[in-house]
Amino acid sequence: MLTLEFLKACFRKEYDEILEDYFTFLRFQSISTDPSYHSQVETCSQWLSKQLQNIGLNVEIWKNEGKPVIFATDLRAGPDHETLLLYCHYDVQPVDPIDLWTTPPFEPHLRNGRVYARGAADNKGQCFYTLRALKTLIENLPSLPVNLKFIIEGEEESGSVALSNLLKEKKEQLKADHLLIIDAGLESPGQPAINLGARGMTCMTVTLTGSRFDLHSGTHGGIVYNPNRALVELLATLHDETGSVTIPGFYKDVVEPSSEEKNIYALDFDPWLFEKEFGTPATGMEKGRTPRESAWLRPTLEINGLSGGYGGSGFKTVIPARAIAKLSCRLVPNQNPTRVATLVKNHLLAQHFPGISIDVHIHPGQGNPCRTSPHSRIATIASKAYSEVFHKPCSYILLGGSIPVAADLAKTAGADMALIGVGLPTDQIHAPDEHFDLDRFEQGYLTICRIIQLFQKKTH
Amino acid sequence: MLTLEFLKACFRKEYDEILEDYFTFLRFQSISTDPSYHSQVETCSQWLSKQLQNIGLNVEIWKNEGKPVIFATDLRAGPDHETLLLYCHYDVQPVDPIDLWTTPPFEPHLRNGRVYARGAADNKGQCFYTLRALKTLIENLPSLPVNLKFIIEGEEESGSVALSNLLKEKKEQLKADHLLIIDAGLESPGQPAINLGARGMTCMTVTLTGSRFDLHSGTHGGIVYNPNRALVELLATLHDETGSVTIPGFYKDVVEPSSEEKNIYALDFDPWLFEKEFGTPATGMEKGRTPRESAWLRPTLEINGLSGGYGGSGFKTVIPARAIAKLSCRLVPNQNPTRVATLVKNHLLAQHFPGISIDVHIHPGQGNPCRTSPHSRIATIASKAYSEVFHKPCSYILLGGSIPVAADLAKTAGADMALIGVGLPTDQIHAPDEHFDLDRFEQGYLTICRIIQLFQKKTH
Repeated sequence: MLTLEFLKACFRKEYDEILEDYFTFLRFQSISTDPSYHSQVETCSQWLSKQLQNIGLNVEIWKNEGKPVIFATDLRAGPDHETLLLYCHYDVQPVDPIDLWTTPPFEPHLRNGRVYARGAADNKGQCFYTLRALKTLIENLPSLPVNLKFIIEGEEESGSVALSNLLKEKKEQLKADHLLIIDAGLESPGQPAINLGARGMTCMTVTLTGSRFDLHSGTHGGIVYNPNRALVELLATLHDETGSVTIPGFYKDVVEPSSEEKNIYALDFDPWLFEKEFGTPATGMEKGRTPRESAWLRPTLEINGLSGGYGGSGFKTVIPARAIAKLSCRLVPNQNPTRVATLVKNHLLAQHFPGISIDVHIHPGQGNPCRTSPHSRIATIASKAYSEVFHKPCSYILLGGSIPVAADLAKTAGADMALIGVGLPTDQIHAPDEHFDLDRFEQGYLTICRIIQLFQKKTH
Repeated sequence: MLTLEFLKACFRKEYDEILEDYFTFLRFQSISTDPSYHSQVETCSQWLSKQLQNIGLNVEIWKNEGKPVIFATDLRAGPDHETLLLYCHYDVQPVDPIDLWTTPPFEPHLRNGRVYARGAADNKGQCFYTLRALKTLIENLPSLPVNLKFIIEGEEESGSVALSNLLKEKKEQLKADHLLIIDAGLESPGQPAINLGARGMTCMTVTLTGSRFDLHSGTHGGIVYNPNRALVELLATLHDETGSVTIPGFYKDVVEPSSEEKNIYALDFDPWLFEKEFGTPATGMEKGRTPRESAWLRPTLEINGLSGGYGGSGFKTVIPARAIAKLSCRLVPNQNPTRVATLVKNHLLAQHFPGISIDVHIHPGQGNPCRTSPHSRIATIASKAYSEVFHKPCSYILLGGSIPVAADLAKTAGADMALIGVGLPTDQIHAPDEHFDLDRFEQGYLTICRIIQLFQKKTH
């Protein structure tokens, strides 16, 4: 077994090269949701495939109508050994509001031990320390103690449609005993944690249309029903004053976890620290729910985007032809994304504003909620590795976010799953000035090295 | 007196040159509300000044902290003659949503007798036919029958702050018997009309701030109060189900016109035609009010802009740090813009959303509502000129829109005022594909020629 000291020395010896390649990875504008970045996503996948080949993995590119899915393997451990499937993604979120970035999102900058760039943490940072961990193991061990399968998709941020559509066809190749989703994180620095589940998700775009073209708000103000007015009146119906979603049936399938289950999770929360870190108090919970319960155990309906008329500098006296909202729901067991999306859609379409038509588009790539056991072999091993690297017992948390394909991938692979990573809620992922600390990058690298080596003690 | 036939012949002889110069005028990106267009506004004012000099006017540029105000005169008629002040503006509205333009907004295109460009109608088209009318008169008459003053400002679309601040200082130079605001229009093609007033205006930007930076809507959804949610809940309080503004005192100073006054105005309205032209029915009125009453005689509060989070293609699962709305009120006699803005601001600030701060910025450049008499000499003359050009009796209408400086300019000049023009509600001003018909351009030109000549019959 390679010791932590040996691994640290490897990391530090290769530090310059690691940073250079990590920065190259970050420079690709691999925004999957916006079709205008399609070719950047492609180039990024090609570069990453080459990196995986260079460290000695067998690489396949799976292509369908979506972004390329990279499937890299080292199966030399052989049929007598267990199989571990790793999951990461190389696509990133859009960068707006672009003017709030201190340095350009696709020009990585190192400041005070942190790398600032879109994807620095989510998920290129985590993907790349995983890749470097595999490189170290392959170079320094006679063989890996598990059969390794590494899947890296390019549509996590836009619903994992391509990969979802490939699951059936690639079922045999994806078979594994264990699945590690390396796209999660910790709740606070220095406190190791394993994620035992993620919320599901469904997203929709709501479009309200009035006139055929934008109107002058003097000439026509008072005559037409302004789509912006209809939109705020429509969306104001979604929550009641207790913070609950008003849509009938929204909570119907929610399973309240037992108190035994709740005892597993680190539900404690420091409101003072939260406000200090994010500049806003924790005030968005349903009445009677704690912040962690609200983010982990309860579904939400959020307005992620509002757009209608003029939002620029100064003023424009317009009644827009259209007003648009982007809505998403986070879901918990046993909610079904399609069922919830339909409830929301039906509620929206049932509202009436004279002269305004309402259209609701449910985006493809919904994700099921998932929960896994803290007692599985993979959770136990990951927990042990984290404890070793952080010198502290590992806690169990849940992911408020979603890995759309996670639940289906685990099912297809026939694997037990754990969601891990060294991201932090303060990494500003999905936001301007996303960043990742290099010391956490190293911790992530060490943890992956340890996890894989801990498999050596058991064969089938 | 130059006959209509002679004037038409002049116009058609110079048609190519007119079109060429009009297109040059339209190519300047003179958007006054957005500071990034400042130099284009400047260049536009210089080009226009040169044009005014070329036709024989004396030109002054008035400058303060705002955009240049052009003041051009021909005072050769002398102190025995009346003085007529004309008003236009050379600035234009922003161009978004840019992707809805058939051809680029600052590359004028002629299609089916219409010029498509930002400002084609509002107000470069009307300004330029006025300039060409003056050229024809100066070239073909021994002298103008009035003392002419022509003021062209560069901030009408952003509140006329520069000109408003100059009124006191330039009071003597602005003195006039009559004021024509050439920034209004007709209600339907072929039906001549004089505008006997305009609504006032006040604009504000409302900013709701939650966290210090954008948050991931999975990680933090359920914990923080989403500024987008607060914004829709805040703005949904502005109107009740009868379409009235709910803010206490909003209607307090509104003077209901007498039935005698109402009889003056062409209040008739064809709902079928409206829906056909604009693709939406007239459904935004306060309960019990007709469309024309609502647009002319009643105040409004419109949401001109909504912006928060991601509005682009695809999806972004973000809780924005900020959500913004742009609100404007149109005002009628005897509402005061500052008083109304304060009422709205106080109402907004009185709402509370936990963790959300509310800021209301009232934009400078408010405009007072104005009403003028149909019996003034300028209204009578304008009415006669329109009837001659259109071969039809002139009707009296009101402007739902606002000319922010109009009321104060009339007061400073000590002049009776009429608001005229040949714009149409279907010109898509302030919207994509703004356009102006060249036959209306010619009608405007002819009307200005006739109005000025009709002054010859009276001296002081």
